[in-house]
Amino acid sequence: MSMMKKEIVVIGGSAAGLTAAITAHRQYPDRSILLVRKEEQVVIPCGIPYIYGTVGSPKKNLIPDAPLEANGIALTVGEVVGIDTAGSKLELDNGDEIGYERLIVATGSLPAMPPIPGFDKGDIWGIYKEVPLLTELQTRLQSVNKLVIVGGGFIGIEFADECKKAGIEEVTVVEFLPHCLMLAFDEEFAVEAEKRLQDRGIRLKTGVKVARFEGETHVERVVLETGETIEADLVIMGIGAVANVKVAKESGLKLGATGAIAVDRTMKTSVPNIFACGDCAEKISFFGGVPSPLKLASIAASEARIAGANLYGIRRENIGTIGVWSTAIGEFALACGGLTESMAKKAGYDYVAGTAMGPNRHPGCMPDAENITIKLLFERRTGVLLGGQLMGSKSVGELVNVISACIQKRMTFDDIATFQIGTHPALTSSPIAYQLVNAAEMAFMKAAK
Amino acid sequence: MSMMKKEIVVIGGSAAGLTAAITAHRQYPDRSILLVRKEEQVVIPCGIPYIYGTVGSPKKNLIPDAPLEANGIALTVGEVVGIDTAGSKLELDNGDEIGYERLIVATGSLPAMPPIPGFDKGDIWGIYKEVPLLTELQTRLQSVNKLVIVGGGFIGIEFADECKKAGIEEVTVVEFLPHCLMLAFDEEFAVEAEKRLQDRGIRLKTGVKVARFEGETHVERVVLETGETIEADLVIMGIGAVANVKVAKESGLKLGATGAIAVDRTMKTSVPNIFACGDCAEKISFFGGVPSPLKLASIAASEARIAGANLYGIRRENIGTIGVWSTAIGEFALACGGLTESMAKKAGYDYVAGTAMGPNRHPGCMPDAENITIKLLFERRTGVLLGGQLMGSKSVGELVNVISACIQKRMTFDDIATFQIGTHPALTSSPIAYQLVNAAEMAFMKAAK
Repeated sequence: MSMMKKEIVVIGGSAAGLTAAITAHRQYPDRSILLVRKEEQVVIPCGIPYIYGTVGSPKKNLIPDAPLEANGIALTVGEVVGIDTAGSKLELDNGDEIGYERLIVATGSLPAMPPIPGFDKGDIWGIYKEVPLLTELQTRLQSVNKLVIVGGGFIGIEFADECKKAGIEEVTVVEFLPHCLMLAFDEEFAVEAEKRLQDRGIRLKTGVKVARFEGETHVERVVLETGETIEADLVIMGIGAVANVKVAKESGLKLGATGAIAVDRTMKTSVPNIFACGDCAEKISFFGGVPSPLKLASIAASEARIAGANLYGIRRENIGTIGVWSTAIGEFALACGGLTESMAKKAGYDYVAGTAMGPNRHPGCMPDAENITIKLLFERRTGVLLGGQLMGSKSVGELVNVISACIQKRMTFDDIATFQIGTHPALTSSPIAYQLVNAAEMAFMKAAK
Repeated sequence: MSMMKKEIVVIGGSAAGLTAAITAHRQYPDRSILLVRKEEQVVIPCGIPYIYGTVGSPKKNLIPDAPLEANGIALTVGEVVGIDTAGSKLELDNGDEIGYERLIVATGSLPAMPPIPGFDKGDIWGIYKEVPLLTELQTRLQSVNKLVIVGGGFIGIEFADECKKAGIEEVTVVEFLPHCLMLAFDEEFAVEAEKRLQDRGIRLKTGVKVARFEGETHVERVVLETGETIEADLVIMGIGAVANVKVAKESGLKLGATGAIAVDRTMKTSVPNIFACGDCAEKISFFGGVPSPLKLASIAASEARIAGANLYGIRRENIGTIGVWSTAIGEFALACGGLTESMAKKAGYDYVAGTAMGPNRHPGCMPDAENITIKLLFERRTGVLLGGQLMGSKSVGELVNVISACIQKRMTFDDIATFQIGTHPALTSSPIAYQLVNAAEMAFMKAAK
């Protein structure tokens, strides 16, 4: 047993923890910083599905350790089993203790594993962010012919697409909502995504729940509530994630409404010298300040840049989680920033939507031109942008970040209609047809009626 | 001779005129609208270079007329030779008259043709936006082996690249500044662009002026001020554009400091019921409100959306020209929004710059990963973003529009450092390494010193 002390200690080495540590160093370059994580090697969380059909190995999907050294951040690999908040020290599973002045908790999330009957049979996999498990899954998938994925959200469809690409014969996604991705997109976008998945040979069973898993010791089939049975050599559960708060909770940190660690807008927890960020931290929405269940690496990194800056004085505030995401099915990409129509409706907004579609090059006969569709939502009375959804070519992955900036600064119909875009024949839509601007104009025309 | 009258008349059918007419219809759907243009068919201005190596014909690079009909806009093809501002009517070259209540002048620009000795010899071409001339140029280029392009700005390098791609053996760009694109980018970006051009077989003569053109009736060689001679079958002049204001000036509209039509922030000219927008209209900079010589189709379209909205009441104001542009050399793209370092220096800003570089996918071994470099400039004391330059993969064409949004809303170091981006392995950089955010952090660290 040993005891050491650093001024700043971060628990967790993924998007939130690493970014928080780097930010702490940038903001407080003279402070000593230690990052404690339980993994020898850290996987890129969003890259996990792409291990199986694209990059080829968990070892090729790692967050490098070079930034630690480059930013003078010490590293301890070990599992934190307790936080002594009164004594400002951590206890590790090997009995070692680490003292801190400021602590950042970035323990992330764990896959949700609901107790569906039979869920404890062999070869029903949750996606843990751990190299040994992901490597084992890769080996196991090599002899799988029939794969069932429960959950048609991002993880579900990305795994489906990659496993199909890797050569698995039958890949079936089971989703209890009417369409895949329906928590992330409006129906017209979800339907287009489903078409692409089906074109690539993936079977979709939507609007139906799993009743049970059957098999001897290992799963052999998935029985749906309709009675339909799907044979399965292996099942991947992709139905979401829950905040990993065991140690924080046991150590007395308060939790929020979603079960994650409660934080204020400076990312401070209920204990004054402890901050939290990323999937383990409670989020409140940019829209109305209500608790938000969103968990994304990009949100984690943004929160980490707030937490890391505020350790010895408040320098940054969290404006609330907007929610910006994207995904790709081959060359077809989808993205969303802010509220979808169904979210806006549910939250009680009086909104107006406008949609524009056109090629992402000009003229449309430029060699790599593909269509992009943009749908924008505005609050009717104020004209303030609430959200945008996009689908089409891969450039929507960055276009959604234009929308994110517009949302963050509460830009209106007119702001966006007169937006000063840069355009180029080989890179973007034409300035006349630019979808972002025209979607705003379409919405304005509806609102003016 | 005939006389007709419409409530709203627009002169010019390119990016500014067409967009102004569409906007007028969207804002004032019950008004009668007429667009008068001198061209039978309108070319996409930024697409002109791409006729010669990519799309194959001026007829494939047209702005379609469909939006006119779709928006109930009448069309007259004819040349306006006078504006009777007192009588609120236009005179056409065939003697016809067109009355208006509100007029929008969108007559664009013409290529600058400086009186270099010998400039009147045959086969010295300015790039007029006219289908017959561009078609003739295409025919002529088919028998050209030695092409000299005067001017290493966007038009110059794009023509060079396309003509080389089309198979012309010797293509030489002559630029009097030390590097190509130096009015649009800082040196480190310009140098990378030059490397790409040279890799593609284009010869660059920079830091030198043309002394004269020599040849019998047609140009045969270009003599530089150093005495060096370059053989030439044809010369393209790509040294900029001048506002096309002949008719406006003769009709008594006031001109601004750059020689374009003076307008206020509502795009109104010195005559109360006449508006102007696009290349023919004077621009003032978003930075300090000084006159700006920028001429871009994207600026034109943005101004047109202001002019068209204000015809019968002020609805939108021009915040000033930010300047957002991009270009591509094969798969390598460059973009800039706002001020470069040299512009900021010249304007007297006390600025600090930060640069970040990394792959546009994560992990970096994703199949189509390429590097992106982003350089951001901030006003030191306030931390407000002044500009950003980008180079790398084609996604910089949309990434620059994220920067444009940030500039327009005067976002600061901290706003950008905590920017809520969306990221995805197949579409963007990682949230930890996202170049936009990290460039802001780099600049902050310099400013904090």
